[in-house]
Amino acid sequence: MSDLNLGDHISHRFNEELESIRSKVMTMGGLVEKQVQDGLTALIDNNRELAELVAASDVKVNGLEVEIDEECTRILAKRQPTASDLRLVVSIIKTITDLERIGDEAEKLGRYTLSLNDQGLRSRHYSQLQHLGDHVTRMLRDSLNSFAHMDAEAALHTIASDKKINAEFESISRNLITHMMEDPREIANALRVTWCARALERIGDHSKNICEYVVFFVKGKDVRHVTLNEAAESVDIDISGDAAEAIEDGDK
Amino acid sequence: MSDLNLGDHISHRFNEELESIRSKVMTMGGLVEKQVQDGLTALIDNNRELAELVAASDVKVNGLEVEIDEECTRILAKRQPTASDLRLVVSIIKTITDLERIGDEAEKLGRYTLSLNDQGLRSRHYSQLQHLGDHVTRMLRDSLNSFAHMDAEAALHTIASDKKINAEFESISRNLITHMMEDPREIANALRVTWCARALERIGDHSKNICEYVVFFVKGKDVRHVTLNEAAESVDIDISGDAAEAIEDGDK
Repeated sequence: MSDLNLGDHISHRFNEELESIRSKVMTMGGLVEKQVQDGLTALIDNNRELAELVAASDVKVNGLEVEIDEECTRILAKRQPTASDLRLVVSIIKTITDLERIGDEAEKLGRYTLSLNDQGLRSRHYSQLQHLGDHVTRMLRDSLNSFAHMDAEAALHTIASDKKINAEFESISRNLITHMMEDPREIANALRVTWCARALERIGDHSKNICEYVVFFVKGKDVRHVTLNEAAESVDIDISGDAAEAIEDGDK
Repeated sequence: MSDLNLGDHISHRFNEELESIRSKVMTMGGLVEKQVQDGLTALIDNNRELAELVAASDVKVNGLEVEIDEECTRILAKRQPTASDLRLVVSIIKTITDLERIGDEAEKLGRYTLSLNDQGLRSRHYSQLQHLGDHVTRMLRDSLNSFAHMDAEAALHTIASDKKINAEFESISRNLITHMMEDPREIANALRVTWCARALERIGDHSKNICEYVVFFVKGKDVRHVTLNEAAESVDIDISGDAAEAIEDGDK
C-alpha cells in the first residue's frame, strides 16, 4: 500500500483499514484465479472430481464479496474518504463484483465439464480451448497484478489483449459450428464446448473491467466507453506493442 | 423521493442531489428497457432497420452510466452520507453497472438479428422466444419499479421470477438443439437464436441483481448469495405466490 502513497494524508488506522481491504481483494482475486485455472484443467483433462469441486466452489468467493462490500460501506460511513482514497473504495466495490462474476463463469466450466460426455471432441477442439484458456488466465493475472500495483499503464496494456481473446473465441465458435454440421450427433456436446469458450471470453471481459477501474483509481478518468486509443491519450500514457496492434484493429 | 423519507435528516440541497441522481437512474432504466423491447421487436419481426438502431444504441446509456457514477462519487466526497443515504448511493453505483450490461445484451439482440438470415426458424421458435422476451421485459420493468418505489417486497417477488426465466431458456435451448440435429444446415442460425435467448436470460440475471440492491437499500441486508427463502426470512418479508413456488423448486 505504501507505494500508493495513501498514507500521506490519512490516519494510521485508516491506512491499515484500506490495506486490509486491498489485501482481501487480492485474496479474492487469488481464489478466483485458481477457480478459473482449475475449471480449465478439469475441462481439458476431463477431470470430473476437479470439475465437481469447481462447480461448487463459490462459497468462499461469495463470502469475501459480501465481507469486502460491508467493509467498504463501513469505511465510506466512518472515514468519509475523499480524492484518491474515495476512488480506491469505489474501484474496490466495482472490482469485487467483476471478480465474483468471474467465479461464476469458472463454475460454469466445472458444470459443463460434468455434462460433457464425449471424448471425440477433445482432440479436435481442446487445444484451441487450451490456448484461449491460457490467454484468458494470463489476462486475469495481469489485471490482478495491475490492481495489486495500481499500475495504469499495465492496466491499459491488459485491456488491449481483450480484443485478441474475442477473436479467438469467434474462431473457436466457427470451428465448432463446422464440427456440428459435419457430425450432427455431436451438436449437444459441441454446444457445451462453445459455452465453455464463451465463459472464458467473458472472464476476459471482466478482467478488462477490473483494469478500467485501476485506470480510474490512478488517473481519476473513466475509460469504460472510449476506444483504447482515446483512453491512453486521456490519461497521457504511451501504449505500444500489443496495445497499438489493438488500436490498428479498431479496438473499442 | 419523499416517500423514502430521505429528507428527514439531510439538507434540502443534498436531498435534491439524491433526487436528481435517482431520477437519472430511472431515465437510464427507461432507455435500457426501450432498448430491450426494441431489440426483441427487431428480432421477432426481423426489422433490420430497428435492429441497426438497437445495435448502435449504447451511446446514451453509457453516457448516463459515466455521469451518474461521477455524481455518486462527488456526493460521497462532498456530502459524506451515512446510513440509508450511503446505502442508496452504493446501491445506485451497483445498479447502473447492471443497467449498462442489460444495454449490452439488448445490443446483442440487434446484432444477432442482423446476422440472422433465415426465415424458416421463425415459425418454429420465435413464439417461444417472444414468450421468454415478454417475461424478461416484465421482470426488468418490475425490477425498475421496485427501484423507483424502493419496495423490498416487490423486489423479492421479482427475484423469484428469475427461476422461471432460466427454465424457459433451458427449454428453448433444448428445442434449438433438436432443430439443429434435424437440419444441420440451420446450425449457424439456430445458434444465433440460442445466443439471443441467452442474452434475454442474462437480462433476467441483471434485473435480479438490481432487485437485490433494492433489498440492500431498504433493509440493509445483503441477500445476494442466499436462497430466496433465507433472503425473505432475513428481511422479515412474507413471500407467497410466485416466490413460494420458486422456493419449492429449490431456488437459489
